[in-house]
Amino acid sequence: MEDQTQHEQAGPEVQKRIQDSFDRQGLMAHLGARMTHIGPGRVHIVLPSRPEVTQQHGYFHAGATSAIADTAGGYAAYTLFPEDTEVLTVEYKINLLAPAVGEYIEAVGTVLKAGRTLTVCQLEVFGVTAAGERKLVANGQQTLIRVKRPEQ
Amino acid sequence: MEDQTQHEQAGPEVQKRIQDSFDRQGLMAHLGARMTHIGPGRVHIVLPSRPEVTQQHGYFHAGATSAIADTAGGYAAYTLFPEDTEVLTVEYKINLLAPAVGEYIEAVGTVLKAGRTLTVCQLEVFGVTAAGERKLVANGQQTLIRVKRPEQ
Amino acid sequence: MEDQTQHEQAGPEVQKRIQDSFDRQGLMAHLGARMTHIGPGRVHIVLPSRPEVTQQHGYFHAGATSAIADTAGGYAAYTLFPEDTEVLTVEYKINLLAPAVGEYIEAVGTVLKAGRTLTVCQLEVFGVTAAGERKLVANGQQTLIRVKRPEQ
Amino acid sequence: MEDQTQHEQAGPEVQKRIQDSFDRQGLMAHLGARMTHIGPGRVHIVLPSRPEVTQQHGYFHAGATSAIADTAGGYAAYTLFPEDTEVLTVEYKINLLAPAVGEYIEAVGTVLKAGRTLTVCQLEVFGVTAAGERKLVANGQQTLIRVKRPEQ
Repeated sequence: MEDQTQHEQAGPEVQKRIQDSFDRQGLMAHLGARMTHIGPGRVHIVLPSRPEVTQQHGYFHAGATSAIADTAGGYAAYTLFPEDTEVLTVEYKINLLAPAVGEYIEAVGTVLKAGRTLTVCQLEVFGVTAAGERKLVANGQQTLIRVKRPEQ
Repeated sequence: MEDQTQHEQAGPEVQKRIQDSFDRQGLMAHLGARMTHIGPGRVHIVLPSRPEVTQQHGYFHAGATSAIADTAGGYAAYTLFPEDTEVLTVEYKINLLAPAVGEYIEAVGTVLKAGRTLTVCQLEVFGVTAAGERKLVANGQQTLIRVKRPEQ
Repeated sequence: MEDQTQHEQAGPEVQKRIQDSFDRQGLMAHLGARMTHIGPGRVHIVLPSRPEVTQQHGYFHAGATSAIADTAGGYAAYTLFPEDTEVLTVEYKINLLAPAVGEYIEAVGTVLKAGRTLTVCQLEVFGVTAAGERKLVANGQQTLIRVKRPEQ
Repeated sequence: MEDQTQHEQAGPEVQKRIQDSFDRQGLMAHLGARMTHIGPGRVHIVLPSRPEVTQQHGYFHAGATSAIADTAGGYAAYTLFPEDTEVLTVEYKINLLAPAVGEYIEAVGTVLKAGRTLTVCQLEVFGVTAAGERKLVANGQQTLIRVKRPEQ
């Protein structure tokens, strides 16, 4: 597995804000995904292999692969946003490069260009075997928009 | 709800082949999605609202929206393929046009261009309220590849 | 050829604003492209066949196909914007469905979802023969942003 | 400007095959683009600033930016293909990250995943000032297909 100690951590307030938001995502819990890194402009999400996330051939379903990729990119952008804002996905494009297999898949969302309104992220998903071999199984690009959080 | 009686049905062998494949997708069952129409070059998939498919604001998660869109497009292409083949998603791009809300969302995959190797589909996802109001919440475009089924 | 009389025209002020902007695009003139329809949320651009717009096999270059598709979508969005604004392409995705051949190609940009900040367009490009046969050669999806025109 | 001496060159036959193909592209000559690097899985194309390649605000037109990006990716893939094949763009997606300005723009196409049928490339376009400052102005992802060259 990639040595994540080399990746800078986001500050504790940002980490808490993002973990809280992630924990409110019913889908991530239902799939069994968890966030494994929250850095400035970079978020990792891991999804372990289980029958509930497969397609018809037993590989990770492109929908599961995309779901964690989209979420990793969204939170990567969100690490750079002010506290009173929300992040929404405008669109993304993803190439499924190889059958997504392994003990787990890991999505890495990285901010490519941060803007006041729009932010663009790179999305990568790796299949990781029990032996720790990593292989790029999907690659994408995502556009996000920053919106003011509605008053409570 | 859209009157689906106006959409032509695929032949019984094609319907069976596609339903069997869909039933082997662990993710679709886990999300609670079901196929509601299998026509030549056109497949509908419905996903009812439940906490397990939401993002942090309680809307349908873009990952859930994308998962049924990708699957609808894949099977739309597969309706046109010979029996000894498989379909794989090469890539897709999706715009999230509006918050995905409603009693359920419905993905419609439609073949735009069928080829011997590559097929291109249009992806649409509608949010449908209990009153039957439909609103386009996502729109995308998908490239699929036909591959020979491996010998058993 | 498609009967364009059935498409509604935009008002004269909108038509003038868009034609003026188009006329300032050095690239469109250099390629030999011209706008043939300006309707509310829909713009057509035609590019005649000539050696200057080809790729290595003598077909229309994907770059030329994309250039008029992007421009048609941008102006389709712009027809719906207030006068003191500008339009910028955020991103687009395009599938090249078939070799782009014909006497000319025609790009049709159509607004799919108009928003205050972001607008999404469908992009279609047709190859049209001297006999008037039309064939879809490219299909895409585009995201645009409305920005305030800078003070002069 | 980026020091290109650090990039490996493709073999002379590959370089010749790709330069010959590039030279048959009417559009590239008409725009004033030239290939500045042909490496294994990596091609650079430069387009100098001139009124013929602008949009309505005087920046490089997204169509020109895309045209050289698409071409750079296509030839990056083609460097890895056998001699009796051709390369066709299946689709690409590009984000316009910043106004494309500078003395010239440079597109860099890099193979991300090479396959027997499909190849996926990353596309980057930089704006470069007279002083040599480089800025990423567009980023994209492209799918290409390898086809058998038709018998002459």
